[in-house]
Amino acid sequence: MANIFPHKHLLSASQLSKSDIHIITTRAQEFLNSGISTTPKYDFLRGKTVVSAFFEGSTRTKLSFELAARRIGADVLSFTASASSLSKGESLIDTLNTIDAMGVDMWVVRHSFSGAVDFMSGFSDCSFLNAGDGQHQHPTQGLLDILTMQQHFGDLTGKNICIVGDILHSRVARSTAILLKTLGANVGLLAPGTLFPHDVSNWKVSQFRKIDDAVEWADALNILRIQRERMASGLLPSLEEFSNFFGVKMKHLLRKPDLLIMHPGPVNYGVEIDHDVARAVQSVIQKQVTNGVAVRMAVMALLAENIERI
Amino acid sequence: MANIFPHKHLLSASQLSKSDIHIITTRAQEFLNSGISTTPKYDFLRGKTVVSAFFEGSTRTKLSFELAARRIGADVLSFTASASSLSKGESLIDTLNTIDAMGVDMWVVRHSFSGAVDFMSGFSDCSFLNAGDGQHQHPTQGLLDILTMQQHFGDLTGKNICIVGDILHSRVARSTAILLKTLGANVGLLAPGTLFPHDVSNWKVSQFRKIDDAVEWADALNILRIQRERMASGLLPSLEEFSNFFGVKMKHLLRKPDLLIMHPGPVNYGVEIDHDVARAVQSVIQKQVTNGVAVRMAVMALLAENIERI
Amino acid sequence: MANIFPHKHLLSASQLSKSDIHIITTRAQEFLNSGISTTPKYDFLRGKTVVSAFFEGSTRTKLSFELAARRIGADVLSFTASASSLSKGESLIDTLNTIDAMGVDMWVVRHSFSGAVDFMSGFSDCSFLNAGDGQHQHPTQGLLDILTMQQHFGDLTGKNICIVGDILHSRVARSTAILLKTLGANVGLLAPGTLFPHDVSNWKVSQFRKIDDAVEWADALNILRIQRERMASGLLPSLEEFSNFFGVKMKHLLRKPDLLIMHPGPVNYGVEIDHDVARAVQSVIQKQVTNGVAVRMAVMALLAENIERI
Repeated sequence: MANIFPHKHLLSASQLSKSDIHIITTRAQEFLNSGISTTPKYDFLRGKTVVSAFFEGSTRTKLSFELAARRIGADVLSFTASASSLSKGESLIDTLNTIDAMGVDMWVVRHSFSGAVDFMSGFSDCSFLNAGDGQHQHPTQGLLDILTMQQHFGDLTGKNICIVGDILHSRVARSTAILLKTLGANVGLLAPGTLFPHDVSNWKVSQFRKIDDAVEWADALNILRIQRERMASGLLPSLEEFSNFFGVKMKHLLRKPDLLIMHPGPVNYGVEIDHDVARAVQSVIQKQVTNGVAVRMAVMALLAENIERI
Repeated sequence: MANIFPHKHLLSASQLSKSDIHIITTRAQEFLNSGISTTPKYDFLRGKTVVSAFFEGSTRTKLSFELAARRIGADVLSFTASASSLSKGESLIDTLNTIDAMGVDMWVVRHSFSGAVDFMSGFSDCSFLNAGDGQHQHPTQGLLDILTMQQHFGDLTGKNICIVGDILHSRVARSTAILLKTLGANVGLLAPGTLFPHDVSNWKVSQFRKIDDAVEWADALNILRIQRERMASGLLPSLEEFSNFFGVKMKHLLRKPDLLIMHPGPVNYGVEIDHDVARAVQSVIQKQVTNGVAVRMAVMALLAENIERI
Repeated sequence: MANIFPHKHLLSASQLSKSDIHIITTRAQEFLNSGISTTPKYDFLRGKTVVSAFFEGSTRTKLSFELAARRIGADVLSFTASASSLSKGESLIDTLNTIDAMGVDMWVVRHSFSGAVDFMSGFSDCSFLNAGDGQHQHPTQGLLDILTMQQHFGDLTGKNICIVGDILHSRVARSTAILLKTLGANVGLLAPGTLFPHDVSNWKVSQFRKIDDAVEWADALNILRIQRERMASGLLPSLEEFSNFFGVKMKHLLRKPDLLIMHPGPVNYGVEIDHDVARAVQSVIQKQVTNGVAVRMAVMALLAENIERI
C-alpha cells in the first residue's frame, strides 16, 4: 500500500523515500490545518510512554518534541544526562536497558556522538527518533525545513535552495540537503573554504564562495547558526569577517525581493543574518518553529502506528 | 457587566480595581470551599498550554503556579533559564517568539528585571501573568495576602495593616500595599531607615521606626523575609541588630493577642520573626500558601475566559 | 480482615508482616500480568498529588517511582533539592509544611540522613514512602528483590540468599535482609571484613569471607554496587583486589548453573560482577527494574486506599 510509512525508526534523512517525505509533510499539514496548540489534541500515543533523552543540551528542540508528544497523547518521561557521565558505550546501553525495563515505547534521543541513536536502536525493541546526533543527522529539522518550503513553493522539483554557513559541522545541512535532493530540488552550499565538508565533491551540489552569486542563484537561503567556538579553533578569522563576506543583509533582499529566508534558530543577529532580514516578510523563521511541532507530531504518530504493526 | 474581569494580563496590582480584586478573591474562595487538592479539578484551561518561565530561581512560587495551572486543567510547559544567558532584550524576545510559535496560550513569568513581564507582553498574543519582576511587582502574592486577611477580618476598610522589614527591595510590599489601599485599608510600614523606599512619601502610608509603635497601631503584621545578602551591602549592621529592633517576638503577641501574623516565606527564624510566633495561633503563614494556589487558580481561570473573549 | 494492608506509611522493611509482604507482591504481580507500560493504566491515585522529593541524587529510582505513580493515575509534583540547602531540620519541616499547604496526598522521599523520612512523617497528614534514607532503609528495593525471587523460586522459606559486597553502607542490604528473614529464608552476607556492619552479630545471618563458600551455600546472590568513594576512605585496598576476592565471575556460574544473579544497578562491570555474568541467563537484573515499577505501583495503590480509610 502506497501510503503506509514503512519505518520503525527515524534515524537519518537518507532512509526516507520521496513517498515517505510526502506522507510525513501531508500529515503535518493536516495537523496544522486543524490547529496544533491543544494538549492533548489526538490519541495516537495514548497510554504510550515517550522517553525524551537529551544527552546534549537543547532547550527549543526538547520543548518542541515534548509538546508534540503530549499533543498526540503520549506520557513523556524526560531524561537529561550529560554525555560525559555516560561516555562509555557500556553505560549508555545500561541506561537504555534500564529505562526500557520500566516499560516505554519510543525514544527521542539527542547525543553528541554521531551514530549514537543508530547504535542504541540495536539494543532495544522501542522505536527510535534521532533528535540530532553529533555532526551526522537531525532528520526532523530537515523535514520541517522541507514542509516550510513546500508551504511557500509547492512542489520543490527544480527549485534552487542554498544552505549558508558552517556546513562542515552541521547535521542540519546534512539532513536538509539529502531530503531536498530526494525531492528533486537543486542544492547549493555557500561557506568559507574552511567550513565546507571535506567530502563535498560527493554531495553533488553547487558550491558558492560569494554570497552575491548564491543570492542570484537561489530561490531560498537556509542560513545556519554560526557556533562562536569555531573562532577559537581557527576556522574563522572573526565574526566581523564572516558577516562581511557571508552574512545575509537587507541589500540582498532589496536585490531579490522574493528570496525565502530560513534559519533553524537561535539567530546570531549581525553575524550570519541581520536583524532586519530575520524580521522581514521574506523570513519564515517563526513558521519553521511551528512546523517543527507539527512535523514531530506527524513522525511520532506514524512511528506509533508501526509499533503495533511491526 | 459588573462581574466580568476586564484584563488580558495580570502585570501589576495597580491595574486592579476594587471590583477586580473582589472577583478574584471570591473565585479563589469558591475554589477553596470545594477543595483544591484534586488534579485536574476543573476544565478552565483544558487543552491550553501554560508556559511557566522562571528566569530567576524560585521553588515554592513555581510549584504553586504549576499546581494551580494543572488543577484547572492546563498542560504546563516548564521552562527555567538563568537571566544571565538571556540578558539581552533581543534574545528574551527571541525565546518568547520561539515558544509562542510552538502554540501556547498563557505565560507565567518571573524575571529579575523590573518591567520584564510588561515588556514581553508587548511582543506576544498570549496572556501574561507576572510572577515577580525585580523589585517591582508580584501581584498574586499581594492577592493571596488580601484573601488571607479577608478570611480573618471580612471587609478590610479601615483596617491597619503594617508591612515589616525590607520594604526597599520588596515587590511583595509594593503589590500588597497597593491592593490594601485600593480596598480602603490603612497601610503602615516598619523598617530601618536604610530599607525604606526612597519615594516613601508618595506611598501615603504611616511610617514606623519602632516595632512597639507598629504593634500598637496594627491589626495585622505582614512580615517580609530579610535577604541575608543585604548585610554585605551595608544596609543592615547585623542580623542580631535587626532582630533586636524589628523582629517580631512572643512578647508582642502577649501584649496584643489578636494581632494577625503573616509572612510570605521562607522564614528566617530568629531574624524577622521568632519560631514561636510563626507557629502561634495568630500566624496564618500556612494558610497563605494554600490561598496562593487558590488565588493563582482564580487568576488563571479568569484570564483564560478572556483569551476567548478578547 | 486478612487482606487489608494496615499501614499509612512505608518507612522500613521491619514494619511489614509476612501477610503485608504477600499483599504487596501479589498486587504487583497482578499489575505485571495485565501489563504495566500504559500511562495512566489505573485510577487508584486519580486526582491525588504525589510529591516526589529527592533530597539526594538518583535518576533510576526517581524515574521508577514517578512512572509508577502516573501509571496508577497520580499527578506527580517532582521536587529536587540538595540536602545541603536543607540541612537544618527546621527548614526541611518548613519545606514539608509549605508543600503540604498546597494540597498534596503522598510523599515519596529520598534523603541522605537515616531517619529523615520517619521524622518528616511526624509533621504531616500525608502518607510517606521511604525511597531510601541514608544507610538505613530502602524498602521498595527490598520488596522488588523479594518479588523477583518469588517469581523464580516460589515460596522463599528455607532458601539461601547471600548478599554480597558493601553491606556496611547499604540500605538495600538492610531492607532485603529483613524481608527475607520475615519470609523464613536464610540470609548470608559476603563482604570484606571492613565492610561488614558493626552490629552484624545481631543480624542472625550466616557470614562468609570467601566467595567460593558463599556460592556453594547460596541459591541466589544479591550483589550490591561498590561505591568507588570507599577506596578513598581506606575501607578497600583497590577495586582489583575487591574484584579478585569478592567479584562474581563466569567460573562461579559454571560451577553452579542454577545460581540466581541479582543486582540493584547500576553495575560496575569487572568490579562486583563481570559483564558476562550480568548478561547471563541466570541474571534477573532487568527483571528487577520492571518489578520495581510494579512493586511501587502496588505500594502506592495500597497506601492510597488507606488515605481514605485511616
